Amino acid sequence: MKRIDLNCDMGESFGAYTIGMDKEVMAHITSANIACGFHAGDPLVMDRTVKLAGENHVGVGAHPGYPDLLGFGRRPLACSEEEITRYIIYQVGALMGFCRAHGVVLQHVKPHGALYLDAVDNETVARGVAKGILAVDPDLLFVALAGKKGETMRQVGAELGLNVVYEAFPDRAYTPEGTLVSRKLPGAVISDPDAVAQRALAMAEGYVIAVDGTRIDLEAHSLCVHGDNPAAVALVKTIRQTLEAGGIQVVPMGRK
Amino acid sequence: MKRIDLNCDMGESFGAYTIGMDKEVMAHITSANIACGFHAGDPLVMDRTVKLAGENHVGVGAHPGYPDLLGFGRRPLACSEEEITRYIIYQVGALMGFCRAHGVVLQHVKPHGALYLDAVDNETVARGVAKGILAVDPDLLFVALAGKKGETMRQVGAELGLNVVYEAFPDRAYTPEGTLVSRKLPGAVISDPDAVAQRALAMAEGYVIAVDGTRIDLEAHSLCVHGDNPAAVALVKTIRQTLEAGGIQVVPMGRK
Amino acid sequence: MKRIDLNCDMGESFGAYTIGMDKEVMAHITSANIACGFHAGDPLVMDRTVKLAGENHVGVGAHPGYPDLLGFGRRPLACSEEEITRYIIYQVGALMGFCRAHGVVLQHVKPHGALYLDAVDNETVARGVAKGILAVDPDLLFVALAGKKGETMRQVGAELGLNVVYEAFPDRAYTPEGTLVSRKLPGAVISDPDAVAQRALAMAEGYVIAVDGTRIDLEAHSLCVHGDNPAAVALVKTIRQTLEAGGIQVVPMGRK
Amino acid sequence: MKRIDLNCDMGESFGAYTIGMDKEVMAHITSANIACGFHAGDPLVMDRTVKLAGENHVGVGAHPGYPDLLGFGRRPLACSEEEITRYIIYQVGALMGFCRAHGVVLQHVKPHGALYLDAVDNETVARGVAKGILAVDPDLLFVALAGKKGETMRQVGAELGLNVVYEAFPDRAYTPEGTLVSRKLPGAVISDPDAVAQRALAMAEGYVIAVDGTRIDLEAHSLCVHGDNPAAVALVKTIRQTLEAGGIQVVPMGRK
Repeated sequence: MKRIDLNCDMGESFGAYTIGMDKEVMAHITSANIACGFHAGDPLVMDRTVKLAGENHVGVGAHPGYPDLLGFGRRPLACSEEEITRYIIYQVGALMGFCRAHGVVLQHVKPHGALYLDAVDNETVARGVAKGILAVDPDLLFVALAGKKGETMRQVGAELGLNVVYEAFPDRAYTPEGTLVSRKLPGAVISDPDAVAQRALAMAEGYVIAVDGTRIDLEAHSLCVHGDNPAAVALVKTIRQTLEAGGIQVVPMGRK
Repeated sequence: MKRIDLNCDMGESFGAYTIGMDKEVMAHITSANIACGFHAGDPLVMDRTVKLAGENHVGVGAHPGYPDLLGFGRRPLACSEEEITRYIIYQVGALMGFCRAHGVVLQHVKPHGALYLDAVDNETVARGVAKGILAVDPDLLFVALAGKKGETMRQVGAELGLNVVYEAFPDRAYTPEGTLVSRKLPGAVISDPDAVAQRALAMAEGYVIAVDGTRIDLEAHSLCVHGDNPAAVALVKTIRQTLEAGGIQVVPMGRK
Repeated sequence: MKRIDLNCDMGESFGAYTIGMDKEVMAHITSANIACGFHAGDPLVMDRTVKLAGENHVGVGAHPGYPDLLGFGRRPLACSEEEITRYIIYQVGALMGFCRAHGVVLQHVKPHGALYLDAVDNETVARGVAKGILAVDPDLLFVALAGKKGETMRQVGAELGLNVVYEAFPDRAYTPEGTLVSRKLPGAVISDPDAVAQRALAMAEGYVIAVDGTRIDLEAHSLCVHGDNPAAVALVKTIRQTLEAGGIQVVPMGRK
Repeated sequence: MKRIDLNCDMGESFGAYTIGMDKEVMAHITSANIACGFHAGDPLVMDRTVKLAGENHVGVGAHPGYPDLLGFGRRPLACSEEEITRYIIYQVGALMGFCRAHGVVLQHVKPHGALYLDAVDNETVARGVAKGILAVDPDLLFVALAGKKGETMRQVGAELGLNVVYEAFPDRAYTPEGTLVSRKLPGAVISDPDAVAQRALAMAEGYVIAVDGTRIDLEAHSLCVHGDNPAAVALVKTIRQTLEAGGIQVVPMGRK
């Protein structure tokens, strides 16, 4: 029986500021990427988000980012490999503190925003991230981009001995070469819920229909979904139902 | 054979800013209280300080503070018990990340600056700190103030099941009641190196000479020393030599 | 003809985080207290909020707070008078930069949250705030608490030569002594919109009905209103209509 | 009589952290670039540095940087033109607050570190900086890189109507094309004090000897010097003496 994980960014609130519908979406996903206080999140938010994930049997992951709260971690910051490695250790360690507090095992690490994109584009950044994960716990899963574009990022993780989880985006268009269509181009993001759900099902079965209509292979272990607003939460529910109706087992990426 | 620990604040540099003579003092102490990025310290500083402590067989401790880099954690910030607990979990977890990276076991937690003083004065703060330590790892030692003034802080830790380490200050004057003389009063801080070293020896033997000349009992397991400048480092060396010449075993607080 | 000002906190969003319905409420108020980046707000938010206020002919004020974004400036932080003065100069100066950019004259300064409450309770804090305002521009209005409780804060401002604006809270209950009923007590906050609007009208006319039913004098030049949610915005509209229907001129506090 | 300005970065301390020998160097320079709290500096440091500059009749300038205290503003951060403009307005406004407090007129703005280098390389960044300066006060001088490499940065400022001050670096080697030799290459930084002083004199006279020995024209109105350590301070003194002995008038860049 085929299986897939649904991962979603969580715990992005900060102090008096709230972002995301964490409670609502937690019931439908299988892995949570929890912000660690650098680009978003704070100790109180991390505590209650880890607790919430544990109660929902959702796999807990760290979602480290650049130290840029003002920019929500979406702006590239020129860091050395060593800086990135230490930033990862710090953030993953901090989240692990909350995992210990709630008797939960940390499952995975997925870099956030510009750090993720830089790791895709830049081997040094990818290595900085992977070394940080390795330093804290070599059993942590490293979530990296599926498809051709993610090869370097995934290879860097694999060479260091990490278990790499391939992540695909059901709401994003893919080129025939298996890379994401740039957000600057029209049609890059797919908004029709049923179309997104069918793409999720295809991805769970190992392929995706590219923008030119060709069917291309795409190995994916986890699908990235969103929980920003009621429509997004409804979409996650639809995706999950479509996957299960299609005979796919929806389970945390770390489930043996 | 009597034994005592020498603890010192470490890793208080931040980015381009340097404070403390960590390398020089590390050779003479037995436990390091390492700043965790809230009041001082950053991921690069924490990494190299944990590494340095490990190489010197010095016990590694977390030194969490209020989130007030601008005030170096020296200003009371009105926080709830829950906030303090989460701030402790976050900071201790982050330092634990670096301990894992360097194959070192985290030994203790000592709150910093205003957080320490508030924990002495205020049971709620003490409980917030102790619960945070407990949540991450109940085997972590909780460093609390020796003498009468520290009773509440120590009791809170003990009631929660933590192993409490009693800390005394050889360079500070004590009242006949066994409390520290306020820094606002003359003679609160003792500057003569030999006098400080002799007081350290007395503390290791279980007593201290109060400001009125009386000898009072003082149970202490660890002595707080400083590494801010060359004179401070020289003093640490003198204290250690005096202790060892006096037949005291100077070992990390966590050594069995 | 009697006159009153309606002031509201504004520009409390930060980076990707949004708080408040600034656009909606700006049409109904006469003075905006704009966060300055310490407890809330950032350069982009400040820029667009000053611009919005200018377009709506709303008086622009600085709303400086403690340097505690994590706590939204709601937690007392033990600062010296000198620290507070410098924090005020910095924040007021920064907002003045945006006023210059948009051809707007800065009208007033109202401390935020815990800094406001500490200035009410503590003469040293009040002096720190007032000296900071004075240092930047002695023509800036200093918004301070109306009623008996605010006497010290207002006196400190007046003694330094500042023009002090007395601020009352139409949605808060007052004791017969003319002080705010503590938020910890039942009935401290009045939620019925018509009751709040009638109280605003009474305040504009120089009195308030205390919790025991007695009518007490209360000199107020500005009324604090809120714009956090649709109901709050509707309430501001109701208050303004009630004031104008009652023959009160609703104008910025600084209007000659 | 020829004239030149000597500018130096100042006010880079933060909280408990001290950087630079501000007091010592202030006696020898004519313009101070004062950090504004984003990459370095804080309200207390800004206050005392503006005061010190005023007392020494040194021209006061804002030294705004990227919001990256952790990286001391030395790391490129991908910001939009609008973000940079607002960051400049905020920081320049804040420093202007302290200028008002001390009765000093703000003279110039010089971007710091990576923001300066990005403005040299990238027209969008240069425009963001220049627009921010213009928005606060069109009379502020804009300090930009002298020589061929600085053409774009200077042109952007001039086109917006700013008065641009050309800055050269006496301790840096120049190529025959009039650009700075990369710091990655040997000989990029000149360490011999007399050589640096002679180069400063040549620059004040309108030329520099390039690495290949050719004499090239270089228009410079201000020379950048450093005050990090005793040797740097001594060098500033030597430079000034050499300039004055060579018949150069050493005055603030804004002196009419």
